Amino acid sequence: MKGYVAAVDIGGTNLRVALADLAGKVIARWSASTEGIRDAAVVVEMMRTGMEEMLDEHSLDKSDLRAVAAGAPGVTDVEAGVVIATSYLMGWRDVPLRAMLEEAFGVPATVDNDVNAAAVGEGWAGEAQGVRDFVFVAIGTGVGAGIVLNGKLFQGMGWTAGEIGYMLVPGTPEEPVERGKPGALEGVVGGEGIRDYWHNAWRAKKTGLPRMLHATEIFDAAMQGDELAEAVLHRSAKTLAYAIYNMALVINCPLFVLGGGVGMHPALVDETRRILYERGTRIRPEIVSSTLGADAQLMGAVRLALDLVTV
Amino acid sequence: MKGYVAAVDIGGTNLRVALADLAGKVIARWSASTEGIRDAAVVVEMMRTGMEEMLDEHSLDKSDLRAVAAGAPGVTDVEAGVVIATSYLMGWRDVPLRAMLEEAFGVPATVDNDVNAAAVGEGWAGEAQGVRDFVFVAIGTGVGAGIVLNGKLFQGMGWTAGEIGYMLVPGTPEEPVERGKPGALEGVVGGEGIRDYWHNAWRAKKTGLPRMLHATEIFDAAMQGDELAEAVLHRSAKTLAYAIYNMALVINCPLFVLGGGVGMHPALVDETRRILYERGTRIRPEIVSSTLGADAQLMGAVRLALDLVTV
Repeated sequence: MKGYVAAVDIGGTNLRVALADLAGKVIARWSASTEGIRDAAVVVEMMRTGMEEMLDEHSLDKSDLRAVAAGAPGVTDVEAGVVIATSYLMGWRDVPLRAMLEEAFGVPATVDNDVNAAAVGEGWAGEAQGVRDFVFVAIGTGVGAGIVLNGKLFQGMGWTAGEIGYMLVPGTPEEPVERGKPGALEGVVGGEGIRDYWHNAWRAKKTGLPRMLHATEIFDAAMQGDELAEAVLHRSAKTLAYAIYNMALVINCPLFVLGGGVGMHPALVDETRRILYERGTRIRPEIVSSTLGADAQLMGAVRLALDLVTV
Repeated sequence: MKGYVAAVDIGGTNLRVALADLAGKVIARWSASTEGIRDAAVVVEMMRTGMEEMLDEHSLDKSDLRAVAAGAPGVTDVEAGVVIATSYLMGWRDVPLRAMLEEAFGVPATVDNDVNAAAVGEGWAGEAQGVRDFVFVAIGTGVGAGIVLNGKLFQGMGWTAGEIGYMLVPGTPEEPVERGKPGALEGVVGGEGIRDYWHNAWRAKKTGLPRMLHATEIFDAAMQGDELAEAVLHRSAKTLAYAIYNMALVINCPLFVLGGGVGMHPALVDETRRILYERGTRIRPEIVSSTLGADAQLMGAVRLALDLVTV
């Protein structure tokens, strides 16, 4: 069968669209900034523009498109095709994204949470190929997990399975977190929390590094032996190791794939694995860095779109 | 179709067998002590004795038996039908229990972990009827969970899903636990840990109660206003609430059923719910006490045996 599918990764500030053939090979990519945009209709219109450009570029027609799938950065009801809530995109609430995509592209559509889409990507074309049960842990500004059990995404009754940013482990604050604030675990493991912690712990006497640094820059510095950076890295890695330990106890899965700009950093991956394995042999899942990287979500959306096409 | 199934609950110190008709109605029960017995063949021989007594009592023949299912207190490979390890029964290792049951009873058999069996019981005839995703938390001497997802037991790749006795939450010790010792969470929430904590915290000035008390007696005293007992109850309930909070984040399920001699105590159930709900509305699963109680495992085994019978 001839035809193509469209994959969409709706990020907090960036929209990325890809066109893939029915073998899953990406033949074109397009992206644009969504900064300051709130209206979902405008975002869908941007997707359509991108899609038309890509189709033109390859001398294809709109009728060559078979399906579209989108990952959205929020709680997503896959059955209803609705993005229930997101703290990005200036706070989408109950956006019927699937219907909007079907209307805009005239083909079957599906939507899912972006971290779940990334987990699908890792299971299909990344580090978790052929693994029945695994967890994809995305660590960027925030922290979330996509859980694959028996080869399928596990979503939970309220579509919020894997919301581990609020997990309580030794060392995280115990006080309940206000709505809209980072969760207990996120505050220690997420990029923003790491940056803030560095900023507060910073003293000119303790480090030659600047006070304003990104989490990944702090981790780079830790690899180069800066002691304050090492302490910050250790704190985040220990908390992440405890969260993985708890998840592995509950789900008993053999693999955790770390993704996201912060989560993929080799210093964090290595230190987390070291701390976890130090605890003994009872809980010893593999801990690896995503190889799809920033493409995990888009590749997952390609897979989800292909699943809509009856070959 | 006429016939009966046998259900077996192999406890740490007690063996219970039930005979049920194909509608699942228990028509006879039998039990015996397994104290000091290590040999699995002896335990199976005891089951056969019990079964013969029950069949005789109802003027039934061995040929009326259609299937048998057993719950065992340890890690159980359901596919292979093997009890891999248990700290009870003087340490069974790799016992091919399913084959032994099939040989002894001449009918199809199945085996599973006892907490998983209890979860099946709760989903079939107890508090979780009709609930797609739920967790059964068993708290007696030890602590474990049986997880039902999409209406089916979730076992994990190594058959150890739900081993939450080792979970790390704020307040549990962080040091790795030696093999054979109670896990971090178990030490605070399990019956033995509660009894030991009371024993160590006990001062004649602080309470009029004796120094040697069982966990459930301490919880009874807490309900009657003993301050030391209240503090011990609060400590366990808080730790349990945190564990449920973490599990609910990962699995996003709407119901936790608390079972086991300690877990079913109304003071623990109420205080755990209170502490969890105090954290806000984000994570608010129902928390209920098992109504099947000590029968949960046996009823689950009845259900597992019925599943073997093609009607």
